[in-house]
Amino acid sequence: MTEKRQIKDRVLTGDRTTGKLHLGHYVGSLKKRVEMQDKYETFVLLADVQALTTHFDQPQQIQKNVRQITEDYLAVGIDPEKAVVFVQSLIPEIAELTIYFSMFVTVNSLRHNPTIKSEAAERGYKDLYYGFLGYPVSQAADISFCKATLVPVGEDQIPHIEQTRKIVRRFNELYKPILVEPKAVVGEIPRLQGLDGKSKMSKSMDNAIYLDSSQEEVMQKIRKALTDPARIRKDDPGHPEICPIFSYHEAFSKETSNEILESCKAGKIGCVECKQLIAGRINVMMEPMRERRQIYRSRPSLIDEILLAGTQRAKGIAEETMKEVREAMGINYFYNR
Amino acid sequence: MTEKRQIKDRVLTGDRTTGKLHLGHYVGSLKKRVEMQDKYETFVLLADVQALTTHFDQPQQIQKNVRQITEDYLAVGIDPEKAVVFVQSLIPEIAELTIYFSMFVTVNSLRHNPTIKSEAAERGYKDLYYGFLGYPVSQAADISFCKATLVPVGEDQIPHIEQTRKIVRRFNELYKPILVEPKAVVGEIPRLQGLDGKSKMSKSMDNAIYLDSSQEEVMQKIRKALTDPARIRKDDPGHPEICPIFSYHEAFSKETSNEILESCKAGKIGCVECKQLIAGRINVMMEPMRERRQIYRSRPSLIDEILLAGTQRAKGIAEETMKEVREAMGINYFYNR
Ligand code: SF4
Ligand code: SF4
Repeated sequence: MTEKRQIKDRVLTGDRTTGKLHLGHYVGSLKKRVEMQDKYETFVLLADVQALTTHFDQPQQIQKNVRQITEDYLAVGIDPEKAVVFVQSLIPEIAELTIYFSMFVTVNSLRHNPTIKSEAAERGYKDLYYGFLGYPVSQAADISFCKATLVPVGEDQIPHIEQTRKIVRRFNELYKPILVEPKAVVGEIPRLQGLDGKSKMSKSMDNAIYLDSSQEEVMQKIRKALTDPARIRKDDPGHPEICPIFSYHEAFSKETSNEILESCKAGKIGCVECKQLIAGRINVMMEPMRERRQIYRSRPSLIDEILLAGTQRAKGIAEETMKEVREAMGINYFYNR
Repeated sequence: MTEKRQIKDRVLTGDRTTGKLHLGHYVGSLKKRVEMQDKYETFVLLADVQALTTHFDQPQQIQKNVRQITEDYLAVGIDPEKAVVFVQSLIPEIAELTIYFSMFVTVNSLRHNPTIKSEAAERGYKDLYYGFLGYPVSQAADISFCKATLVPVGEDQIPHIEQTRKIVRRFNELYKPILVEPKAVVGEIPRLQGLDGKSKMSKSMDNAIYLDSSQEEVMQKIRKALTDPARIRKDDPGHPEICPIFSYHEAFSKETSNEILESCKAGKIGCVECKQLIAGRINVMMEPMRERRQIYRSRPSLIDEILLAGTQRAKGIAEETMKEVREAMGINYFYNR
């Protein structure tokens, strides 16, 4: 067993399919994934089952989101020839593995998970949904079914991966060391400010620029975005550090952002001009995304084909892993005859 | 949908595969099942996954038990031509359905389940295993995947079925009314006393007569069983109501048990004779079981074939149900194209 090492690391990433993706996702993770797919065997999980933990009453929406998000992935440059994009609910092996893991994970250890903790702080443990409480267990199954070695996360998510490592370690001790303890690839996950300048870009705050926006939509949204309220006239000195528009300069136009910083502080650039500049920049960046999206929109069955192929590939791996899991656990009826 | 009613009721019963079966099981449930298989479409679940909730560190044993218990079933007269005997872990659809149910079941509602409550009283909620806490959810999935209409239970288990009914009702409200609220078939589930006269017959108390016992073993065990300690000489008046041997007369020799009662009370029968009588009775009852068992022992592959066939039948139904479930939830990707 130990002889057969994977030469290439395998990365697992993905998104809960709770809504279409925006520039915050692009900056925070998608851009990185597009780079990763060249270096690693990359698996991208459309976590529609986990989306149900909070959206169980809107499953129709989740199904729509799966296709929408796949389109977003393809648009930003995730390449189905390189990355395996797949749908969680179509891999029942993940549910199976979740159930097996859940036998030896205590409620107590789940309560230490930061996500669970913060939700419980609001609602109380008793009022959590059982599936939600088990989120860390199902996450461990997502990572383990494909034996991912690397999981890109932000600093704040390290405890999640630590929990997966613990679950895997326990499984390996209890049964047989066939599962892989993943490593967290900790990188700064930049958070993009929302158009309201108050919170990070998110669907629920209605302050996002979506990846499927047209040129016009981008310009309009930027035009309406809040800026430094202290600037009434063009030559009022600005405070770019509190302005979302400046954060977009930093995120999408690094080279010129220092110039903007100075000009704004010195009252040498007006907000209208500053906004036009960054809207133009964003649109230039998004142009190839729009072109790719157009290709997929003109051939809608392509997305289904890509999802099917990715899911089949993931399912093949899941079946293999579950065969090993059952064998390790000694519940491999009928296999050894 | 409502037009297509099942003519015949479908019964779900089964056992967690934590150990081989004994006379307590026979009296408590197996005998009833053998009757039921003639009247109803009967599904008998070998709950090896649920066995893991308490025995996750002994999976090898669970696998052995699956075959052993199947042999016990066949020996007592469960007829694979009539009843579908199947293995839980080989129906991953049950795991899937468990996961879907778990999204809308709160931790709080699980805490009201009597089994969970009593375990939590000993260990505290925090120290429960997550899978154990979810027992009622997985039970609901066992019953629902095959749309069982009837579940035979003892009085004390009514709350379990009530919980399944609630989960099913919630599913049907949230998505589409495709699942069936099962009815509890409440019968007196007689409890057989153990050979120690202290507690009910159970493996963990080491006070059981197993269904695979030989004549000699039955006689020996009965011979060593405790009786009324007040009886030192044959003509001491006995207290049959506290004697396990008398409870066996009641269970296995109803017609003559009154006579024994009187004779014991009057000090007219000795314990040795009384024991010989019931051991003989039990052996007569067990003779056809031994014969049937012999047939299966002489052709070991038969058990595998029966399990495979039953599991395939159950899996077919599970696949159909999950197709409906996904359709009802609107997560039936690729089906509607
Ligand atoms: S000039 Fe630019 S950075 Fe400064 S406040 Fe206006 S929009 Fe913000
Ligand atoms: S005579 Fe029979 S019923 Fe009475 S105490 Fe002895 S064994 Fe028990």
